[in-house]
Amino acid sequence: MTGSTTSGAAVADVHPAWLPDRAFAGIGGLRVAVIGDGDVVQTVRDEVERATARFGGALLHAAEGADLVLVAAAQAPGQLAPESFDVALDEDVVVVRAADGPALLYGLHHVVRHTAARDLAAAVGRTGFLGVHAPAEPIRMLDHWDNLTVHPVMGQVERGYSGDSIFWLDGRLRDDLGRVEEYARLLGSMAINRVAVNNVNVHAVEAHLLTDGLDDVATLAAAFRRHGIRTHLSVSFAAPMTVGGLATSDPLDDDVRAWWTRAAAAVWARIPDFGGFVVKADSEGQPGPFAYGRDHADGANLLARAVAPHGGTVFWRAFVYNHTQDWRDRSTDRARAAYDHFAPLDGRFDDNVVLQVKYGPMDFQTREPVSPVVAAMPRTRLAVELQVTQEYTGQQKHVCWLGPQWSELLGFRPWGAGTTVADVAGGHGPGGRAAGLVAVSNVGTDEFWTGHPLAQANLYAFGRLAWDPTLPATDVLDEWVDLTFGADDDVRDALHDVMDESWHTYEDYTAPLGVGFMVRPGHHYGPDVDGYEYTPWGTYHFADRDGIGVDRTRATGTGYTGQYPEPWRDVYERLETCPDELLLFFHHVPWTHVLHRGVSVAQHVYDTHFRGVDAVDAMAERWATMQGRVPDPFFDRVAQRLTEQQRGAREWRDQLNTYVLRKSGVPDAHGRRIH
Amino acid sequence: MTGSTTSGAAVADVHPAWLPDRAFAGIGGLRVAVIGDGDVVQTVRDEVERATARFGGALLHAAEGADLVLVAAAQAPGQLAPESFDVALDEDVVVVRAADGPALLYGLHHVVRHTAARDLAAAVGRTGFLGVHAPAEPIRMLDHWDNLTVHPVMGQVERGYSGDSIFWLDGRLRDDLGRVEEYARLLGSMAINRVAVNNVNVHAVEAHLLTDGLDDVATLAAAFRRHGIRTHLSVSFAAPMTVGGLATSDPLDDDVRAWWTRAAAAVWARIPDFGGFVVKADSEGQPGPFAYGRDHADGANLLARAVAPHGGTVFWRAFVYNHTQDWRDRSTDRARAAYDHFAPLDGRFDDNVVLQVKYGPMDFQTREPVSPVVAAMPRTRLAVELQVTQEYTGQQKHVCWLGPQWSELLGFRPWGAGTTVADVAGGHGPGGRAAGLVAVSNVGTDEFWTGHPLAQANLYAFGRLAWDPTLPATDVLDEWVDLTFGADDDVRDALHDVMDESWHTYEDYTAPLGVGFMVRPGHHYGPDVDGYEYTPWGTYHFADRDGIGVDRTRATGTGYTGQYPEPWRDVYERLETCPDELLLFFHHVPWTHVLHRGVSVAQHVYDTHFRGVDAVDAMAERWATMQGRVPDPFFDRVAQRLTEQQRGAREWRDQLNTYVLRKSGVPDAHGRRIH
Repeated sequence: MTGSTTSGAAVADVHPAWLPDRAFAGIGGLRVAVIGDGDVVQTVRDEVERATARFGGALLHAAEGADLVLVAAAQAPGQLAPESFDVALDEDVVVVRAADGPALLYGLHHVVRHTAARDLAAAVGRTGFLGVHAPAEPIRMLDHWDNLTVHPVMGQVERGYSGDSIFWLDGRLRDDLGRVEEYARLLGSMAINRVAVNNVNVHAVEAHLLTDGLDDVATLAAAFRRHGIRTHLSVSFAAPMTVGGLATSDPLDDDVRAWWTRAAAAVWARIPDFGGFVVKADSEGQPGPFAYGRDHADGANLLARAVAPHGGTVFWRAFVYNHTQDWRDRSTDRARAAYDHFAPLDGRFDDNVVLQVKYGPMDFQTREPVSPVVAAMPRTRLAVELQVTQEYTGQQKHVCWLGPQWSELLGFRPWGAGTTVADVAGGHGPGGRAAGLVAVSNVGTDEFWTGHPLAQANLYAFGRLAWDPTLPATDVLDEWVDLTFGADDDVRDALHDVMDESWHTYEDYTAPLGVGFMVRPGHHYGPDVDGYEYTPWGTYHFADRDGIGVDRTRATGTGYTGQYPEPWRDVYERLETCPDELLLFFHHVPWTHVLHRGVSVAQHVYDTHFRGVDAVDAMAERWATMQGRVPDPFFDRVAQRLTEQQRGAREWRDQLNTYVLRKSGVPDAHGRRIH
Repeated sequence: MTGSTTSGAAVADVHPAWLPDRAFAGIGGLRVAVIGDGDVVQTVRDEVERATARFGGALLHAAEGADLVLVAAAQAPGQLAPESFDVALDEDVVVVRAADGPALLYGLHHVVRHTAARDLAAAVGRTGFLGVHAPAEPIRMLDHWDNLTVHPVMGQVERGYSGDSIFWLDGRLRDDLGRVEEYARLLGSMAINRVAVNNVNVHAVEAHLLTDGLDDVATLAAAFRRHGIRTHLSVSFAAPMTVGGLATSDPLDDDVRAWWTRAAAAVWARIPDFGGFVVKADSEGQPGPFAYGRDHADGANLLARAVAPHGGTVFWRAFVYNHTQDWRDRSTDRARAAYDHFAPLDGRFDDNVVLQVKYGPMDFQTREPVSPVVAAMPRTRLAVELQVTQEYTGQQKHVCWLGPQWSELLGFRPWGAGTTVADVAGGHGPGGRAAGLVAVSNVGTDEFWTGHPLAQANLYAFGRLAWDPTLPATDVLDEWVDLTFGADDDVRDALHDVMDESWHTYEDYTAPLGVGFMVRPGHHYGPDVDGYEYTPWGTYHFADRDGIGVDRTRATGTGYTGQYPEPWRDVYERLETCPDELLLFFHHVPWTHVLHRGVSVAQHVYDTHFRGVDAVDAMAERWATMQGRVPDPFFDRVAQRLTEQQRGAREWRDQLNTYVLRKSGVPDAHGRRIH
C-alpha cells in the first residue's frame, strides 16, 4: 500500500518503529472507553479501535463496563494544566483524565508503554504509572532540515542520513502522505508538539512556502494536527526582498513591518493553529539584521510582532558566529560568539520569541561543555537545541545512542547545584521564562526511517526526555526496546550491550578530550585531524610537536571560561579541576601532560582509540547473536552498518594514533601497532 | 554578434587571443598569392583576403606580381614531408611551398608570426625564417575534458577554470559554433592537428556520442577540418554494454569485437577523416580490460583493430594506478604504477595504438621527475601528455607560465645524454616509433578563453613546443606577446617580468622539493598539507616531527628509482646527487637535512615561501604599470587575478610555514613571522 492512508493505518513499506501492532496488545484485549471530542481525541479513538479489533477487546463510548477509561478535556474537569493527564484507579478501572486532546493521546501512549511488556494490572503496580503526568518542557519540537529540492551540495535533507525528505519531492509536497501520517503518529506518541518542515537554511524555492506554497503547508499541518502537533516554517530574514519585492529587509522599516504583518495574517488565515517561524539569521551566509546595523532583538521582535496577534512564536537561533575567521587570529574564539552576541540582549526579546541555543558553544560535537548562554539570559525564553540527526556522531552509520549524552547535558547544573539546563528551558530557571527543547530530526524516506535502525531510539529518546529530562537513559532505552521488539529479555540485554556505552565508545575512537572537529570538511564523516585546522570556520586544535588544545582561560587564553558563572568559570579555568573529557576544549597542554586518570594526553589518545575499536568489535559480536531474534531486515541492516562502523572506527583509530605519534613522538606505553 | 560565423570572422564577445587583426598587418599590406585547392587552402585564402582587405594589400590567385606566394600540395612538387613547408626567397618574392593544405596554413602563420612586429623584409633576414620547417612531433593534440552536461561534482569541464564547454550545452552541441570556429582557427595557427572533444571520464550521456551523437560530432569535425585538425572521441571501454546492450566488454569476445568494428565503421562513414578514440581504462573508476582478466594490450588492440581499416588511431592512457590504496601500506607506490603496468607490455601494442603517458609518474604536479615509462617502451608509440589546464598549478587564478616547465621536461634526457623526451615522442628514440604530444586544453566560454588572460600563452606554447620542442620558452613568449599586443617593448618586458619566473614562483610558495599534492582534496586549489595524507589516493608525504618525504630508493624504499635507466637510477638514488627540487620525491629526510643549496629542509620551506610571496607582490606591482598599455578589460582581469594570487600565495606561505614550524620545531633563521 503506497497511497495516502488514514491516520494510524500502517504503511506497508516502512518500519513501524516503536509502534508495531504488537505494542498495543496490552490494551487491545481490554474494554476501553474513549470519551471526548476533537481531532486528537478521534485519533485516540482510532488507535483504540484498531488495537481492540486486533486483540479482542472493545472500544466503548462511555465509561460503563470499561477496564480502561480515557477521558479528555471538558469531560474531565479539574486542575490539570494543558497537555497534562492524571492516571488513577477507580475500583478496578484505570481512568486517564486528560486536560485536552493531546494530553489524552499522551495518556494513551503512557498506558501503551507500560503495557507493552506486561498486562494492565501489572502496570498499575509500577512506580510512575499512577498520578499526574505533565511535560517538563512546554516546547518539544523537531526541526527538519529538509529542502524542497535536492541541493547540489547538501542533498535534499541537509545533514540527513536517511534518504530523501518525507515531505517534499521536486519542489512540492509529495502526493503520497502515508509516511507523513505515520511520522506524525510516531511523534504524537512521545508527545512532540511542534514541527518545522523546512531547512533553516532557506533557499529560493523554500522562501516561497510562505506565500505560493501555503496550500502544501496547510496539508502538512492537517496531518500533524491530528497528533497534537503544530506546524512551523523556517523563513528567510530577507523574505520581504526575495519574496515580497521590497528594497530592504530592515527590521525598523515600516514597509518591512507591514509586509511581515500581511504575510503572517495570510498564513494564519489559512492555518489557524500554525505554530510560527524558525529563523537562522546572520549565520553561515543567511541574511539578518546586521546588514542594516540592527541587532538580533530588533530582528526577532520584527517577526514576533507580526505573529503575536495570531498566537505565533518566533524561534530565533543563537547560532551566530564569524564563519570567515582567519586561522592565524588566535584572539577570536568561536566558542564565545553566541554569548557575546546574545547575552547583552537579555530582556529585549518579546515574550513570543524563543531563543534557540545549541547545547554547546560550538556545533553539536560529540563532546562539548554546555553553552554558557543557558545561564546568561534569565529574562529570555531559551530553548535548548539538540541534534538527533548524527552529523558529528556517526551519521547513522555508527551506533551512537544519544540518550546518555542528552541526559548528562540536560541534567548539567549551570550554577553548580540546583537548577539544571532542563529546568532553565522548562521555565524553572532564575527568570522563570519557559520554552523547552528543539532538535534536528533524523528521519527520511529510508525504510527504517533513520538509516541505522537503532537510531530510531534517538528520535524516541528526544521526545521522552523533552517530556521528562530526569528519565534515566537506560529506562528510555528499555521503553523503546519493549515497544519495538516486545518483552524479550535477550533482545533487551543485547541492545543494552550494544547501545548503552556507544556514545562513549564513539567518543573514544574519534576526537579526544573535547577537542572536536577532527572530521573531513564538508561532509563531516570520518577523520581528518587537520581538516579544519587552516580553514575560516573557527574550529582549531592548534596541535604542534609540543602539545594540543585551545587555551580558553581568562588567565592566558580567549577568556571564554569567564562566560560561565561560578563554579564552572573556575573549574574549567584551572588545569587541576578541569574534567579530563573537556581538557583540550579549555586548555592547550603538552602531549606529556598527565590527565586525572593518570596517563599522558598522547597515551590517552592511544588507549581510547584502541579501546574504542575493541568495543565496536564487541558490539558487532554481540549483535551477531541476535540473528533470528529480531526481524531479518532489521538484523541485516544493523549488521551491515556495524561492518562499516568497524571499518570507520579503525580508520579513526589509525589516523588519530598515527597523527599523534608522528607529531608528539611519544611512543605507546604498551607497544601496540601504530602505523 | 553571437550567431555562427564564417571561418576567420571575429566573434564580437570573445577575445582574439594571439590572432587580433593587427597581427596580420605585416602581410595585410602585401600582394599575396595563394595557390592550391582544398578546405585548408581555402582557409588560408580567407585569412589573406581578410588581412589584405583591411591593410591595403591584395589577394592574388597566381604568383605573378606577388610579394608573397603561398603554394600548396600538388602545386608545389618536391620532397616535403607531410605538414612541412619550405620558405625561400625568389628574387624579392617570399615563396612558401607547402606539402599540403595544413602545411600551407602553418606556413602562413609562420610568416604572420615573423611579421607581427616587423615588415617582411626584416623577417626574411631573421634566423629561422627561411628554410624547411617540419613538425618535430607528428601528433600535436588537445584533449578536452568537456562533459556534455554539468557534472554534479566536476562541473561541465572537468578541471576547467574558464567557464563552460565551448562545444556542448545541455547534452547537445551548442547552436552557436562561432567560438568553436574561432578556437579551431587559433589551434590551426599553431599547428595543432588533433582534438578530442569530450572528457576521458566518459559518463552515460557522453558514451552515446559514438552513436546517437554522431551528427554533432560531424558538425564539430567540419569546423576543425578547415584548420587541418582531426576530431576524436573519448570512449568508454564498457560501451559494448552501456551503449550496445551486450552482456560483456571482454576484449577477446567475438561479439565485442564485432560491435566495435561496426561502431567504428559507422563513425568513419559519417566522418571520413575522423581521428580515432581516446581511452581511459581501468583508471579512477573507468571500466577496462582488467575486469575480464585481460591486459591493456588486449584492450587497446581491440579498439585498434576496429579503427585500423579507416586509418584511425587509439590513444590509450597509461594513467592506471590503484586509487583505493591504504595509506598504512608503505610498500605500494603510486609512482611505480604506470611503469609496472605497461613496461611489460612493450611490443604488444598494434601500430595504430598510441600510449598516452603523463609527463610525470604521479599526476601533473608542479614538480615531478619525468616518467620512467618514456625510456622503457622502445617498441611502443608513446605520446607524452601535458596539462595546459592548470589543475595543480593555480587553476588559472594564478599566473603560472608553463613554457619553462615543458621546455625542461621535453628536453630531459632519459639516458643522461643524447635523446630527449621530445625525441622519443617524435620517433627518434631507440625504437624509432613516432607519436607526439597531447595536452589537456584550458579553454572555455570565458571571454578571454582561459579565465586568466595570461593563460592564453600556455595554450599557445603547447602548440609551438609540439612543433619545435627546442624553442626557448622565452622566445615562445616573445612570439605570443608580439602577436597578442603588437611590437611593444614595454609590454613585452613587463610580461617577461611577470611571467618568466612564474612557474618557479608558484613552486616556491606551494609544495616544496618535489613533494606534491599538498592541496585541498577534491578541487585541488589552495593548500592542505595533510589533505591527502590519509586518503586512498597514494599521494603521501609521511611528514612527522623528525622529517618528511617519500623513500623511493632501491636501498631502503619502494625501489622506484630502479625504473630509470642509468644515470638517473643512481642520481636519484643517492642523497648526494639527487637534485634539491626532487629531494622529497625520492627521499625521506630529516627537517634538518642540509640541501645542496646549503640550508635545511625546514629553512628551505621558510625561505622559498617568503620569497614566493614577495615575487607575487612584485608581479602585481609590475603589472600595475601596464594600465593603459594593454586593453582595459585585459588589464583589469589580470589585475583581479593577481589580487587573488597575492591572497592565495600568502595562504600557502602561512599554512606551509606554520605546518613545518609546528611539526619540526625548527625556527626560522631569519626570525620572520610564522603564525
